Amino acid sequence: MKDVNLGIVGLGNVGSGTLTILAENADEIARKLGFRLNVTAVCSRSVKSKNLPAGLAPKLITTDWREVVSHPDVDIVAELIGGTGTAREVVEGAIAAGKSVVTANKELVALEGVSIWKKAEAQGVTLAMEASVCGGIPIHAVLREGIAGDHIETLFGILNGTSNYILTEIEENGSAFNDVLAEAQRLGYAEADPTADVDGFDARSKLALLASLAFGVQLTPGDIPTEGIRRISPIDFHYAKQLDCTIKLLCSARRVEDGLFVSVRPALLSKKTIMAGVKGAYNAVWSRGKFGADTFYYGRGAGPNPTGVAVVSDLMRVARSLHPEPAHRVPPFAYTDLAAAKPLEIGRQHRHWYLRFRITDQPGIIRDLSSILAEHSISIDAVLQLPDLDKQNLPFVITLENSPESAVRAAVEKMSKLPFMVEPPLALPIERGV
Amino acid sequence: MKDVNLGIVGLGNVGSGTLTILAENADEIARKLGFRLNVTAVCSRSVKSKNLPAGLAPKLITTDWREVVSHPDVDIVAELIGGTGTAREVVEGAIAAGKSVVTANKELVALEGVSIWKKAEAQGVTLAMEASVCGGIPIHAVLREGIAGDHIETLFGILNGTSNYILTEIEENGSAFNDVLAEAQRLGYAEADPTADVDGFDARSKLALLASLAFGVQLTPGDIPTEGIRRISPIDFHYAKQLDCTIKLLCSARRVEDGLFVSVRPALLSKKTIMAGVKGAYNAVWSRGKFGADTFYYGRGAGPNPTGVAVVSDLMRVARSLHPEPAHRVPPFAYTDLAAAKPLEIGRQHRHWYLRFRITDQPGIIRDLSSILAEHSISIDAVLQLPDLDKQNLPFVITLENSPESAVRAAVEKMSKLPFMVEPPLALPIERGV
Repeated sequence: MKDVNLGIVGLGNVGSGTLTILAENADEIARKLGFRLNVTAVCSRSVKSKNLPAGLAPKLITTDWREVVSHPDVDIVAELIGGTGTAREVVEGAIAAGKSVVTANKELVALEGVSIWKKAEAQGVTLAMEASVCGGIPIHAVLREGIAGDHIETLFGILNGTSNYILTEIEENGSAFNDVLAEAQRLGYAEADPTADVDGFDARSKLALLASLAFGVQLTPGDIPTEGIRRISPIDFHYAKQLDCTIKLLCSARRVEDGLFVSVRPALLSKKTIMAGVKGAYNAVWSRGKFGADTFYYGRGAGPNPTGVAVVSDLMRVARSLHPEPAHRVPPFAYTDLAAAKPLEIGRQHRHWYLRFRITDQPGIIRDLSSILAEHSISIDAVLQLPDLDKQNLPFVITLENSPESAVRAAVEKMSKLPFMVEPPLALPIERGV
Repeated sequence: MKDVNLGIVGLGNVGSGTLTILAENADEIARKLGFRLNVTAVCSRSVKSKNLPAGLAPKLITTDWREVVSHPDVDIVAELIGGTGTAREVVEGAIAAGKSVVTANKELVALEGVSIWKKAEAQGVTLAMEASVCGGIPIHAVLREGIAGDHIETLFGILNGTSNYILTEIEENGSAFNDVLAEAQRLGYAEADPTADVDGFDARSKLALLASLAFGVQLTPGDIPTEGIRRISPIDFHYAKQLDCTIKLLCSARRVEDGLFVSVRPALLSKKTIMAGVKGAYNAVWSRGKFGADTFYYGRGAGPNPTGVAVVSDLMRVARSLHPEPAHRVPPFAYTDLAAAKPLEIGRQHRHWYLRFRITDQPGIIRDLSSILAEHSISIDAVLQLPDLDKQNLPFVITLENSPESAVRAAVEKMSKLPFMVEPPLALPIERGV
C-alpha cells in the first residue's frame, strides 16, 4: 500500500512533540493505518537535521514554508507555527496547492476557520483541527463524530489550565491569588503577562470554538460575557466548602428555545459533580445531551506531546481519507489487524495490596500473619483496626508494600488455613492511578 | 444532495431509542450531514406502524429481516436485536447483500467481530460498532480516531453500571451486599440472575473489546482473571476511607515489555483520582498514553437513548462515507454550515447565586442588604458567616434562590454603594450540574 507523505511547518513545542510521536510511535501508527506516514519535508526558522528525532529522514529541510507546500511529494501539510500571520499564509498556500491541512492554531481557527474551511471545500481538500482546543482531549472527534447523533443542550468547560492550576493552589494551600500567580510565573506555568489566562480571554476563544462544534453557531469571542479569577480568595473556598462546592473558572453554554446563554466566569460548582475533581493544569468538558444525557471528557489542556497526539491523530485520519483504498474503511477495531494474544500470567504483576481478615480474636494473630508474609518476602505497609468491633468476628486490615501477586496469593492461601480465620482473607489491589 | 436510507432491524430498547432520535433529532442530523437519513425499512417480531415515532414513514414494515437487508433502497442496516443467533444472520446477510452495517451487539462483536469485519472488508462495506460497549460514552471514536496517534500504556474501566450502582449504595448507605442487590432487583437495575453483572463476566467481555481497540490484541474473555463484588462489605469501605480510597469493580489492562496484564476485580482506588468520583450506574474509561498522558471519559453505560446516540452517530459516520461527495469532507466544525449568532442577553438567565461581601461590621447590615434584595424580588437562600473574623474587614456570604441575573446585577450594583462596603460584592453563580 502507498505511504502518505507529510510536510511539517513549525518546530516549536507542538511541532517537536508531533515529530517525536511520528518517529517513536511509527510502528504503532503503521499497524493502525496499514501504511506508513513519512515525514517528507520540515520547515522552521532555524531547523537543523541533527535536531530531528532519530528515525526521521525528510527529503527537504528548509526555512521557507513555500518549499514545503509546493513540494510535489507532500500530501498533507501540518501548520504548527501559531498566530494569524505567516500561519494563515501557510494554511491558505497549502490549500491552494491542493494539499489537505492539519492545524493546531486556535487563534487562526477561531478568527478565520470558516473562511479557510470554505476554501478547503472548494479545493476538495480536508481541514482538520483537533489540536486547536483542549490539546490533550479528543473533544473535536467526540463532538464531530462520537456523539454527533445527540442534541446537546448544555456544555460546561474548564478550558484554561493556568487558571485552574491557580484556583487549585488557592483551595489546597489557602494562599492569596497574587502569591499563587507569582509562584506560577516563577515555575513557568503562567506567562509574564497573565491577562489572557486569568482574565478569561483564552478560555472565551476556546468556548466560542466548542460552541461551533456543539451547537453549529459562529460566535464572536468578544460577545461572550467574561470575568476572570483575580477576585477569588481563600475565604471564598471556605464558604464554598460549607456549601459542598468548589470554585472553577467555568465556561458554560446553554441552549434554550430562542438561543444560547454563554459565559466565562468563576462559579461555585457542586463537589458532587465529576467535574469538581478536575485539579491543576487539566482541562475538561462536560456535556448534557437531550438523548445521551451526561458525558464528560478530561485530559491535559496543552503540552508538546498531548497536543502532538491530537496533531498525529488528525494526520492519520486525513491520511486514511487520501489513501486509494476506500476512505470509509476505518478499521472497526482501530488497528488493521488484531494479534491473537494470551494475557500475561497475572501472578507476575506487582501491586500494593489490601488484605481484610475476619477473625476470632486471640493472642498471636499478628505474629502468625506477619510470619507468613515474611516467608513470602512481602513487606507490611500498615495494620488498620477500627475500635469497638465484635471480637468473635473481628474485621481488620493489613496493607502491603508493592508485591508480586503470586506471592500475595500464596500467602493468602496459607493464611486462610489458620484456625482463627472466620473466612478466607479478602485480597484487593490498591490503585493510586492508571 | 442524495439522502441515505436506513434499515433498522430490532425494535427493543436500543431500537426504540434509535428511532426516537432519528425522528426527533432529524433536523439537527441533517444540519450536520448536509443530507437526510431516511428510515426506509424497519423489522421486528411484532412491529406496528402506529408504534413508530411521529415523522417516520418507512416504505417497509416487516417481521422478516431478509426483506430489510435485500430491500434495494436500503443503504445501511442497523442490527439491534442482540445475541448471536438471528443477529449474526442479519449482519452477515446485510454484508453479503453489499450493505454497510451498524451494530450495538457486544456479544456478537466480542465473539465474531474479527470474522465479520473481514467479510465486510472483502465486500467493500463498513462495519461500525460504537454502541457495543459503554453505550453512552463515545469510546470507540476516541480510541479509533481521537487519540489514535498515542501509544496507550494503561487503561482502566468501570464497565458495569449495575455493580457500580451496588458498590455506591454499599458505600453511601452502609447496607450489606445482599440487601442492596435485592433492592436493585426490585427496582429493575439488576437482573433476576445477577451473575453476569456482579461476578464480573459482563465487564470482562467489554474489557476484551476495549483491549482490541486500545492495544490491537484479540483476547478470549475467559482468559481474563475475573472476580466479582459479592464479598465487598460496608466494613471494607470504612477501611478504604481510612486509606483515602473508594472501592470499584475495576477493569484494568497494562501494556508491559512482553505483553498485557489484564484483570477484572474489585480494587481500592485513590479518592484523589478523577475516576473515584464515578457513582451509580455510570461507566468510565481512563487511559494513560506514552505521549498524551491521562485522559478520562465518562457517561451512561446503557439505556435506550444513550445507546441510541451511539447507533445514530455511527449511522451518520457511515452515511457520510457512502455519500457521493468525497468521504473525507467531514466538516471540521461538525455542521455543514455555521449560523452567525449573538449570545442571548445573559441578564435573562436564572441561576442560584453566591454573594460574598467584605464589610465594616455595624448594626443593620443584614437589614440593608435584605431590603435591596427584596426590592429586586430576590429570595435569600442562606446567610453564612465564619466565626472569629476581623470585624473591620468581615467577609460573609448570602446565597440566593434561583433569580434572573439582571436583578442580581442591579441589586449588587446598589449594594456596592452602601457605606459599610469595603469592596464591591463578589457575585458568583452556583452550579449543581450541567
